[in-house]
Amino acid sequence: MNAQIEFRSDNAAGVAPEIMAAIADANTGSALAYGADEWTARLRDTVRAVFEHPDADVFPVISGTAANSLALAAMCPPWGAVMCHDTAHILQNECGATSMFGGGAMIRGVAGDHYRIEPAALEQSFEATRWGDPHHSQPSVLSLTVPTDFGTIYTPKQIVELTTIASRRGLTAHLDGARIANALSVLGCSPADLTWRAGIDAFSLGAMKNGVLSTDAIVCFDPAIAAELVYRTKRSGHVASKMRFQSVQLIAYLTDDLWLRLAHQSNATMARLAAGLCKLDVEQLNEPDVNMLFIRVDPAVADRMAEAGLLFYRIAADVVRLVTSFQTTDADIDTALTRIESTLTP
Amino acid sequence: MNAQIEFRSDNAAGVAPEIMAAIADANTGSALAYGADEWTARLRDTVRAVFEHPDADVFPVISGTAANSLALAAMCPPWGAVMCHDTAHILQNECGATSMFGGGAMIRGVAGDHYRIEPAALEQSFEATRWGDPHHSQPSVLSLTVPTDFGTIYTPKQIVELTTIASRRGLTAHLDGARIANALSVLGCSPADLTWRAGIDAFSLGAMKNGVLSTDAIVCFDPAIAAELVYRTKRSGHVASKMRFQSVQLIAYLTDDLWLRLAHQSNATMARLAAGLCKLDVEQLNEPDVNMLFIRVDPAVADRMAEAGLLFYRIAADVVRLVTSFQTTDADIDTALTRIESTLTP
Amino acid sequence: MNAQIEFRSDNAAGVAPEIMAAIADANTGSALAYGADEWTARLRDTVRAVFEHPDADVFPVISGTAANSLALAAMCPPWGAVMCHDTAHILQNECGATSMFGGGAMIRGVAGDHYRIEPAALEQSFEATRWGDPHHSQPSVLSLTVPTDFGTIYTPKQIVELTTIASRRGLTAHLDGARIANALSVLGCSPADLTWRAGIDAFSLGAMKNGVLSTDAIVCFDPAIAAELVYRTKRSGHVASKMRFQSVQLIAYLTDDLWLRLAHQSNATMARLAAGLCKLDVEQLNEPDVNMLFIRVDPAVADRMAEAGLLFYRIAADVVRLVTSFQTTDADIDTALTRIESTLTP
Amino acid sequence: MNAQIEFRSDNAAGVAPEIMAAIADANTGSALAYGADEWTARLRDTVRAVFEHPDADVFPVISGTAANSLALAAMCPPWGAVMCHDTAHILQNECGATSMFGGGAMIRGVAGDHYRIEPAALEQSFEATRWGDPHHSQPSVLSLTVPTDFGTIYTPKQIVELTTIASRRGLTAHLDGARIANALSVLGCSPADLTWRAGIDAFSLGAMKNGVLSTDAIVCFDPAIAAELVYRTKRSGHVASKMRFQSVQLIAYLTDDLWLRLAHQSNATMARLAAGLCKLDVEQLNEPDVNMLFIRVDPAVADRMAEAGLLFYRIAADVVRLVTSFQTTDADIDTALTRIESTLTP
Repeated sequence: MNAQIEFRSDNAAGVAPEIMAAIADANTGSALAYGADEWTARLRDTVRAVFEHPDADVFPVISGTAANSLALAAMCPPWGAVMCHDTAHILQNECGATSMFGGGAMIRGVAGDHYRIEPAALEQSFEATRWGDPHHSQPSVLSLTVPTDFGTIYTPKQIVELTTIASRRGLTAHLDGARIANALSVLGCSPADLTWRAGIDAFSLGAMKNGVLSTDAIVCFDPAIAAELVYRTKRSGHVASKMRFQSVQLIAYLTDDLWLRLAHQSNATMARLAAGLCKLDVEQLNEPDVNMLFIRVDPAVADRMAEAGLLFYRIAADVVRLVTSFQTTDADIDTALTRIESTLTP
Repeated sequence: MNAQIEFRSDNAAGVAPEIMAAIADANTGSALAYGADEWTARLRDTVRAVFEHPDADVFPVISGTAANSLALAAMCPPWGAVMCHDTAHILQNECGATSMFGGGAMIRGVAGDHYRIEPAALEQSFEATRWGDPHHSQPSVLSLTVPTDFGTIYTPKQIVELTTIASRRGLTAHLDGARIANALSVLGCSPADLTWRAGIDAFSLGAMKNGVLSTDAIVCFDPAIAAELVYRTKRSGHVASKMRFQSVQLIAYLTDDLWLRLAHQSNATMARLAAGLCKLDVEQLNEPDVNMLFIRVDPAVADRMAEAGLLFYRIAADVVRLVTSFQTTDADIDTALTRIESTLTP
Repeated sequence: MNAQIEFRSDNAAGVAPEIMAAIADANTGSALAYGADEWTARLRDTVRAVFEHPDADVFPVISGTAANSLALAAMCPPWGAVMCHDTAHILQNECGATSMFGGGAMIRGVAGDHYRIEPAALEQSFEATRWGDPHHSQPSVLSLTVPTDFGTIYTPKQIVELTTIASRRGLTAHLDGARIANALSVLGCSPADLTWRAGIDAFSLGAMKNGVLSTDAIVCFDPAIAAELVYRTKRSGHVASKMRFQSVQLIAYLTDDLWLRLAHQSNATMARLAAGLCKLDVEQLNEPDVNMLFIRVDPAVADRMAEAGLLFYRIAADVVRLVTSFQTTDADIDTALTRIESTLTP
Repeated sequence: MNAQIEFRSDNAAGVAPEIMAAIADANTGSALAYGADEWTARLRDTVRAVFEHPDADVFPVISGTAANSLALAAMCPPWGAVMCHDTAHILQNECGATSMFGGGAMIRGVAGDHYRIEPAALEQSFEATRWGDPHHSQPSVLSLTVPTDFGTIYTPKQIVELTTIASRRGLTAHLDGARIANALSVLGCSPADLTWRAGIDAFSLGAMKNGVLSTDAIVCFDPAIAAELVYRTKRSGHVASKMRFQSVQLIAYLTDDLWLRLAHQSNATMARLAAGLCKLDVEQLNEPDVNMLFIRVDPAVADRMAEAGLLFYRIAADVVRLVTSFQTTDADIDTALTRIESTLTP
């Protein structure tokens, strides 16, 4: 049988060797628990340098759901609403985490093609809002996902357009950065350009899909949000006693562009895959801006692809989703293309 | 200057080599995220074997606060009260986590010497309860800490006495097992004897202070609690995408008695320290059943102990708390005793 | 200037004389607080008789928002979702009350013409649900509004169709009965037919818009829901010490069909208004099944209507909403029609 | 059989005729719902005048539990703690309402004789607090009950002493005013002296036990608290559509000292009762500062008192609690004394 090739999710990848080495380095001697260690202090400095912001603060947590929902709870009053795309992870895939941590805050979907909020739709939503009316949840935070869960990206300019609309109504802005490194790698802009310079007040760093072992993080630029997060992270059980081992992973991740290099690998192998599938005349349903591609194939072809050892999810009988990760190699892609070619005819 | 010797907290220790090796072993190939991996399945089997219970279930989470508060939220209705000792961690050190996850559930302290709930005090508390009166939070869960945060332990017989009182009133029972391995190592009873056979329905496994890198866990014996935890862990952000790396740590931890051996080391070095201090005529304020000792010394002696490179916390000007960990060696103890002896006279 | 005629909302009406008399009757002697009085016991009997259900229970509360959100919190787990129409009051007008009391439960809109959930849309929503996946809020309760906030009604048969679909998926069913008496008056069915015989497990009685002074109520048919509500109503501050004065209002309301007679008056005056407007060739945007009518008029006409002493809300520049109440008289309608006629030409 | 005389609770009393008349007066014509009516505006003016504070705001709600817990939720962050006496109603009798509305805020008891917080105990509690440590709920609000649930009172000077201690630590101050009119009637100070001039930021007005039909209220002096309450009252279902009927009760209650006159009646009849019992040599366990008296009698005497038609609660076999209300008359007291005298000997 063929060796399996992983295209189900970047979440299925393992840990980058640089991260494993950093953990081993930190496992010497004792260090105070709950973040009162030297690595966590250094992580803060690293974040401030990488994001070019003197007030940036960082809170390591164990998951993207924690990073999103705790930040949003700190930004949104209980009677507020978080505005996001109809397909956003916080609305569809976190089982009400933001509403729970937010004391019953609402999450409201806004429409838009390509999984991106349409500025006009956001304006329209605001115009339909009864501002100041306590019967109506008050829009308080705009949350954007970059790249989206479907592989599309907002440019800094598009983000600015949306955060400007939101800011005029008094909303703050949050970014779900589950794959932010993939977006940065493609856009070529600086981390600051994609975040605070584009009007973002807090975001999730999203390292888990891109090579770390046990940490995501909230990064925020507003000390008032950070002041709340000190308590909100603790009382939700997200302040690990051995935080040094989370912090050291993130230091390594953000140092020497490791995060961007890892993301580049997943983006580049996806581009190679897309180019190869193009030659095979396989219908592609999206431009794979980052590391995610949807293709349409005959159901029988999809069946044969699975039999050939390719691991992937089927969105519909004839729609296949393919995702690469930092661990995907050019050889994996070439092997996969060879197998796919062989499945196209019975 | 002398090399420092760590007696502040077992939380300050690092990761055991067996745990590091297990993580490295699991970092091969891809695996589905969020617990749908083979390690997490094996962890469940391991827990069932070690705790001799066919319905045991296990949920890796990142902290003891998460393990305690999520389990308690699954066990206690929002209008209920969790009964614990006045000094319990869940009441004094988790910033209201149980009340938050529990939808406003109350935590009620019960008195007792040696940081243990006194059976008579529990009975009295129940007699003062207006059962069925909705003006009054209804006692719903008994939570015991074994060993307590102050190093005292409940025997299985003492636990049975308390859970029997509680059970007669319809309460379920929870155990905060932040250092449960230390208790097991001393008591010499089986893990089952200290938990479900003593009437415990769910407990926190408490691995973080005893050699693991990034995981604690909830273990429960009641499928109804487990059914809630599936959702409660996810929506609180405690289902890590890379759960396999938590599960593999816990498999290694529970295999071949590693957890008990690590705990034995911290207990034994503490016993060695206590014996040495006894010879030095240092006043000991407690019997160090596990790995924690409180001593009374002249404040000037404490100052000199700190200058001599011993790391510890002072509970009062003349009271010093000393905690050993699995990383403490006999040599550490002997060096520490030599230093302490030299500090006893100016 | 003309005397003003109220068409803004049935919420603006006062208290029916029968209700005032009942309150005065109960104001004799002392009675135990918090529902331990004879009137509250009699109210329970009354509800069981009127709704023909031996297990019906009733909880007086001060508002429809309280009645809806507390019942839904008792019916939906924190990780659940309440399914309702996109325009439902619980989704659009209660500022997240259900999510707050529900511990972060989600409220999900379902589409449908005429402000009614379309059975096919409900099925589709269920098909898109990842049942048992903790990343996804689990649909747990179906909530229908009868009549809707826009004056349309579901027939018992339509309700049965929807609750049957919901029940197959394990959902319970709730009815927002803010104007249920108006629906009953039009449908001519029994209160049982519109509620439990149609699959409804709990509903709000909605008396506030129809002649009472200070009470709405939750009615439920499932003792398990009632058992939770005993605590949930208290801890949300909705158990009034002087509950006897709420209970006596509801006894009077449900006795001798007072609620239906009051609702008939508002429905009948609306029908008279609609017939009159028809003769005047005013465009009607809906069939006024109950006591609410939307008309399209030239903005200048709407201005003149307001100047003529008619009180109403404008939904758009050229859309006027007219609502009658139990206090609206035939004379009010005839006067209003005369005034409207005079405004149709400048 | 003798006519019964009510000494169980002032909560068991009915509605004062002045209140009934005010409600009838407001039942004319239509008025906008949810507080957008002229009575609610006038109530605000009345409160500002009576309490001599230009920023005072008032929120009618249906119960003291609602008034207390919603105000406290607006004053205390979720990670905060409300400090109150060990016997406070908010801690013992509201089923966790403050923790629920407060997002898991803790309520911490402080000791003190006579059901009053001892200043030294409050200081001690603050000294034991780990300020700024997120593991520890942060004391945020001081809540005092005046008079206490056991009939003792704080003088303005005593309140100032406690709020000054609290204020130095950054806490705000709340007053549970369930019987505040009784305290004012005895103390003879102005409403302002007992509240904001003594450092109180918000309090419950407590009208329900003193003659109104269907309303208590939150009064606050800080616009920031009021701004939150606009939303918090609505989303908890405590904004009644027919608020005008609550507001008009409170206007009447606060006008021409009605509230003080009603409270004076209950205090004076209690004083008459105490004087009479003194002559009968019945042991009194407290000075009845307001309208509550605890006496010690032989259990057989208590039995005979009950048989003689006196309604009261027994705190213990030989301890009887007697409470008067605004409806208690001198004749009631004289009759009661005659009956008690006859029960003292078999």
